[in-house]
Amino acid sequence: MKQKEEYMARALELARQGMGHTSPNPMVGCVVVKDGRIVSEGYHERYGEYHAERNALLHCEEDVTGAELYVTLEPCCHQGKTPPCTDIIMERKIGKVYVGSMDPNPLVGGKGVQLLRDHGIEVETGILEKECLELNEIFFHYIQTNLPLVAVKYAMTLDGRIASASGDSKWITKEKAREHVHELRKQYKAIMAGIGTVLADDPMLNCRICEGVDPIRVICDSKLRIPMDAQIVKTAHEIPTMIYAAAGADGKKKAQLEKAGIRVIVQEQETQVNLKKVIQSLGEEKIDSVLVEGGGEIHGSLIKEGLADKVYAYIAPKIIGGSKAKGPVMGEGIRKMSQAAQLTDVRMHEFDGDYMIEGTIKKAR
Amino acid sequence: MKQKEEYMARALELARQGMGHTSPNPMVGCVVVKDGRIVSEGYHERYGEYHAERNALLHCEEDVTGAELYVTLEPCCHQGKTPPCTDIIMERKIGKVYVGSMDPNPLVGGKGVQLLRDHGIEVETGILEKECLELNEIFFHYIQTNLPLVAVKYAMTLDGRIASASGDSKWITKEKAREHVHELRKQYKAIMAGIGTVLADDPMLNCRICEGVDPIRVICDSKLRIPMDAQIVKTAHEIPTMIYAAAGADGKKKAQLEKAGIRVIVQEQETQVNLKKVIQSLGEEKIDSVLVEGGGEIHGSLIKEGLADKVYAYIAPKIIGGSKAKGPVMGEGIRKMSQAAQLTDVRMHEFDGDYMIEGTIKKAR
Repeated sequence: MKQKEEYMARALELARQGMGHTSPNPMVGCVVVKDGRIVSEGYHERYGEYHAERNALLHCEEDVTGAELYVTLEPCCHQGKTPPCTDIIMERKIGKVYVGSMDPNPLVGGKGVQLLRDHGIEVETGILEKECLELNEIFFHYIQTNLPLVAVKYAMTLDGRIASASGDSKWITKEKAREHVHELRKQYKAIMAGIGTVLADDPMLNCRICEGVDPIRVICDSKLRIPMDAQIVKTAHEIPTMIYAAAGADGKKKAQLEKAGIRVIVQEQETQVNLKKVIQSLGEEKIDSVLVEGGGEIHGSLIKEGLADKVYAYIAPKIIGGSKAKGPVMGEGIRKMSQAAQLTDVRMHEFDGDYMIEGTIKKAR
Repeated sequence: MKQKEEYMARALELARQGMGHTSPNPMVGCVVVKDGRIVSEGYHERYGEYHAERNALLHCEEDVTGAELYVTLEPCCHQGKTPPCTDIIMERKIGKVYVGSMDPNPLVGGKGVQLLRDHGIEVETGILEKECLELNEIFFHYIQTNLPLVAVKYAMTLDGRIASASGDSKWITKEKAREHVHELRKQYKAIMAGIGTVLADDPMLNCRICEGVDPIRVICDSKLRIPMDAQIVKTAHEIPTMIYAAAGADGKKKAQLEKAGIRVIVQEQETQVNLKKVIQSLGEEKIDSVLVEGGGEIHGSLIKEGLADKVYAYIAPKIIGGSKAKGPVMGEGIRKMSQAAQLTDVRMHEFDGDYMIEGTIKKAR
């Protein structure tokens, strides 16, 4: 007989099939096991459609009385766009429910499990909890803070440079690592960059593998310096684009950009774009996640102000040197090593000889 | 029956037992196999003593006629401090010899194998060749170039900084990574640093695990600015120390340093220490390897001038930021990414949450 962790791992695998389609809902997977045999499976396939538990049980014609149900997230007990999952679990007389992670929504959390227990269904929680929490990291973060999960991404050489002293940055990493950036972009609702990066690289900031649902592009451009022939401006009718500017930004340029399809938000109280307000504003726009792709000044401010949650650092095994070559995190920096932003849950990946280190920034609570 | 790679792996294991004691000779291991059974083993234990093959065969009282002999390096065929290894291989009537790597000494290479073949002994070369070459990387480099193998070592944060903007660098990495630095130092004959690093950190640059045989300390200090109460000066009677200075260095200070036990070499033709000449001079001093531990200016010059052979980059998963925080490789740097110093044979290690990436700098041939 399989271990409960194995069934939950299968439920996680199913959950991931919903990636990119469930937002603003979480990804959830479910497995029904009877007499040591998987009799049905399901996952939350698309926002607005059935939840994982309901999908699994509706697909199953067999009698599941007394069976075990494995679900990566606590079953909901409230009517939303679809009926509560606890209802169908009770109707089908499931004997025991194994839960991966609890619902982090403080208004809901624990009530689903309590309801099941009140109806005599045994519940065991915390199966592969870490993996289940990680799966919906963005969802959990947003529901608890109303702020997007902010991830800083950069590619640097092994001596910590994102461009040569003369400004050349094409390319730091090889094709496979750069392809992985598109995998990352797929997981984020928005991509943010500063005007410096736009002027230097004229990037598209799109997602080659997002099948028509590119992340929203967010540019911080205090003085609206973005050229009208920038790739981002030229494609703004196809890919949603927002520009944050500060007081004194040229009204005529603003109108031109808006005509090109860009939403321009002017922070009238600020002489330069206030990143904290940008992040809050994105949260209010229901943007649950932002991948920040430079430059060093924006990264430095986000990290120093405690606004960044994650870091993805791609590292190419090459050295360029140069005391004037830019680093990935600029600004004022910290004074003492003990004040450094520490990463936890650090993971290392390799892409055809390039490396990527990712981690979560530890926050003072 | 075991594969030949397995026997060679055992020979490599034996060879490594000589680490730190064979220089300027290479490390060599040897296994004698008869009827699929290891009947004897040996390695080159200490400079001036018997070679691996002789040790293995002398320890073996059994008749090894027709047996197989596995040796990590081509057997020597010349009289040195000990008799040629080819002699005893022929005397003991070994049937077949498996060789890991050939002797890179152009005066010797191939002759040992040829001699054995001329005497009717079958020889197969190239068994675990890569591993056997790596084992004696330093030896092979030195014998072919008469220059020490120059390795650049640094510890940086995940944003590529070796100190905060205010100069704090204690500590970037945790204890386990810092301990590994002592493992590295054990493998190098000399440790080099610039005066900037000495003034900033007042390091000992010793080896905690070298059992009395600390590497030679080499300081580049054009103007002899090293304080007389620096740790390095205070311990110069116990640990061999050399300082390279340039024209105009204070003669009185030179005399004081010499009295403290330091060898001071003044490059009278140079206004500041010429690193290329330092490396050549170390080669002439029979120093086959140098671990360079900063700072960024020395690293930058060594890499830009093509004098560095290897890089060890320790990376701590933390971010400090700061446009004024120093990077590990400074100087002028390169202009185009395509001119970057590329690393090959890249390997990644982990030490209690810190990472280390090592690689060999690809050279234009």
